[in-house]
Amino acid sequence: MSDIIEPRILKGFRDFLPPSEIERRLLLEKVEESFRSFGFVPIDTPALEYAEILLGKGGGETEKQIYRFTDNGGRDVALRFDLTVPFARFLAEHREELSLPFKRYHIAKVWRGENTQRGRYREFTQCDFDTVGSDTAAADFEILLMIQSTLKNINAGELTIRVNHRGLFNRFLGKISVSDKSVEILRTVDKLSKVGHDATLETLETLVGSENARSILDYIAPRGSFEETLAALTKAAGGPCPESERLSLIRRFMTDTGTADSFTLDPSITRGLDYYTGVVYETFLNELPGIGSVCSGGRYDDLAGLYSKEKLSGVGSSIGLDRLIAGLESLGKLKGRGSYARAAVACIREEDGGISQGIGQKLREAGINCEVFLDEKKLTQQFILAEKKGIPWMIIPDGGALTLRNLAARKNSEGLALDSIIELLKKGDIS
Amino acid sequence: MSDIIEPRILKGFRDFLPPSEIERRLLLEKVEESFRSFGFVPIDTPALEYAEILLGKGGGETEKQIYRFTDNGGRDVALRFDLTVPFARFLAEHREELSLPFKRYHIAKVWRGENTQRGRYREFTQCDFDTVGSDTAAADFEILLMIQSTLKNINAGELTIRVNHRGLFNRFLGKISVSDKSVEILRTVDKLSKVGHDATLETLETLVGSENARSILDYIAPRGSFEETLAALTKAAGGPCPESERLSLIRRFMTDTGTADSFTLDPSITRGLDYYTGVVYETFLNELPGIGSVCSGGRYDDLAGLYSKEKLSGVGSSIGLDRLIAGLESLGKLKGRGSYARAAVACIREEDGGISQGIGQKLREAGINCEVFLDEKKLTQQFILAEKKGIPWMIIPDGGALTLRNLAARKNSEGLALDSIIELLKKGDIS
Repeated sequence: MSDIIEPRILKGFRDFLPPSEIERRLLLEKVEESFRSFGFVPIDTPALEYAEILLGKGGGETEKQIYRFTDNGGRDVALRFDLTVPFARFLAEHREELSLPFKRYHIAKVWRGENTQRGRYREFTQCDFDTVGSDTAAADFEILLMIQSTLKNINAGELTIRVNHRGLFNRFLGKISVSDKSVEILRTVDKLSKVGHDATLETLETLVGSENARSILDYIAPRGSFEETLAALTKAAGGPCPESERLSLIRRFMTDTGTADSFTLDPSITRGLDYYTGVVYETFLNELPGIGSVCSGGRYDDLAGLYSKEKLSGVGSSIGLDRLIAGLESLGKLKGRGSYARAAVACIREEDGGISQGIGQKLREAGINCEVFLDEKKLTQQFILAEKKGIPWMIIPDGGALTLRNLAARKNSEGLALDSIIELLKKGDIS
Repeated sequence: MSDIIEPRILKGFRDFLPPSEIERRLLLEKVEESFRSFGFVPIDTPALEYAEILLGKGGGETEKQIYRFTDNGGRDVALRFDLTVPFARFLAEHREELSLPFKRYHIAKVWRGENTQRGRYREFTQCDFDTVGSDTAAADFEILLMIQSTLKNINAGELTIRVNHRGLFNRFLGKISVSDKSVEILRTVDKLSKVGHDATLETLETLVGSENARSILDYIAPRGSFEETLAALTKAAGGPCPESERLSLIRRFMTDTGTADSFTLDPSITRGLDYYTGVVYETFLNELPGIGSVCSGGRYDDLAGLYSKEKLSGVGSSIGLDRLIAGLESLGKLKGRGSYARAAVACIREEDGGISQGIGQKLREAGINCEVFLDEKKLTQQFILAEKKGIPWMIIPDGGALTLRNLAARKNSEGLALDSIIELLKKGDIS
């Protein structure tokens, strides 16, 4: 047996065993349920695409991290590293088949050969939702409301969604005549919470001089309420403008839906990525702000520009699934489950397997997930196995009548009919 | 704009637009619901693994079809081409963390650089379910019952699951002294329905001579009932043996669960793959037998042997999702849906976006999926868009009172309160 291959997986990749896979699926199912409740529809795209499509005009970081190779047909191909680029390609390719506005979600794996030392994975799930083709406050607000509703649906606790408008910030940068440095300024400001006030000031001073640096830090400083902040930013940007009007209307929608408390206007939120042009936002769990944003996004002007002449404006967001799961776990808000089954049927004699499955089928038809045990083992061993899986009830078939065992309480009810057991399990508060 | 990149995908790969992605998801959700109801639990494994792990001792066909490359760290890696090999590696690697019998399902994409001319895809979803660590008739039967239940759950119509036992067939081959040719014989027999009786006879004659070839064709010929066939095969194989006892017990379980009509004993079913050792089976839709088996599998003796010294016996099956979907589509059993939403809120004035989302939230809280329209367009245009998406109801907010429109019937009910609309939609038979 010396030719056994050592079982191992690649660094940065993960196996998901049932308890964590069940946990992930329960979470994603609730996320999807929320997306669907807003009328968003799913799409899927290939994991593998032409490298030219995925790399577009090329980007230093991306090019280094992407899994790229030549396939057996000599094609230059790569694994997708996000869901945004494939979505842009999808929009350009299927434009004729889609009606706008197009509200889609896409939950799928992506691959990046990142440095795993930072606790990052090389294979992870992204969870994106976007509305394309409606440049309205209603579209912006809907994405914000979906973040709020979806995180509520997964029981993430109180949260703060910090909103800003890149266009308004750019207007301010124009007013102080530093628009030509806007990309560098946005990136610098985006790192404020990581590098701190002094280091940010220093970088900004090098970029735009001392006075402008101070103006920028003033602009992005925390203020009072959403309304007060909006008034101050509007003034700093030169007075009312389409961008301030947009924020004002979005704020009204928050108030109209009774969700105003979940949102703040935070001028320091810029999102480092160049392609955002309108609202931008990040989401923090109030009980665990230190883990960073669990859901971020914004509005972009020209998503599919690399592949199409048509300008498509969109607004969207992405849930940071791994971070969110880690956060919910540390808050004790996720309980690992070993099984979806709520009842198990014990195996007393192998030749009664058909009778046991008959009992199982009756329960399943009544909506009660039921595992049938297959092997003649001591009953106590079967109890232990069921408990290990987190199954609360066991049915012991012995001749005609049945025994129902509450595994946690170690209590048997004997001589029951199957119908009575089904009634008990259906009305019982079995979590 | 001459630097636009032509949007295109790789040959053999697919985009899934909402109607087909919704259809696929509805189907997979019902499949999963059924697996879970039997207490089966999900796992996931990496898309990318060491090539050494996936290729094992190497196999001609596999090696030609696999997507294999060297990653940026110099590792020899490949995309998984099925879910069986990763499952074997998973079992060996996590043996200590799992309790046996281990009942798992795995639904995930796999990649093969196959010839696409045969209507095959290079990226497709596999849907596997297996029980490992219980070599019992109960485990064999449970997989068969799951096939029957799962296909019933997706409304696939009447079906025939053709069962056979490779071990019993091998016993027969031993009795006529041609065991040394068993692999070739099994492969030849597996192709019977494709190449026909005469060509099969010819191949068998070359392999084992004329008399044996006729015996084999006699053995695999269709007979009467399950019981009659079993009696004949048992006799041909030399009398009662563990394999005939296993089939006999499985048959009893079918009768005990009232599912006997769904199964036949078909001695021509062998499954070409070498690793099966016990029961094997294929599933045919009675309304569409010509498309071939939509769910096949069997029992294997030593799944994880490449990676572990421990012998793990398992029994499992795999749903041919693409084939099943094509079959259900051609039977008209799948209706494409453009949306999960059952109601839409029309956009009358953009500044009422908050009020519209407030209506949407009330419906969502009542369990009614509701899309809010975002753009001020003519109402007739909004009606057309909603109908195109398959949304049956539209709510038109105009001042205080609401109008509910049945889009198919083109009928309005005016002056309704939101609560009345929710009541109507909840009890209405809206499909």
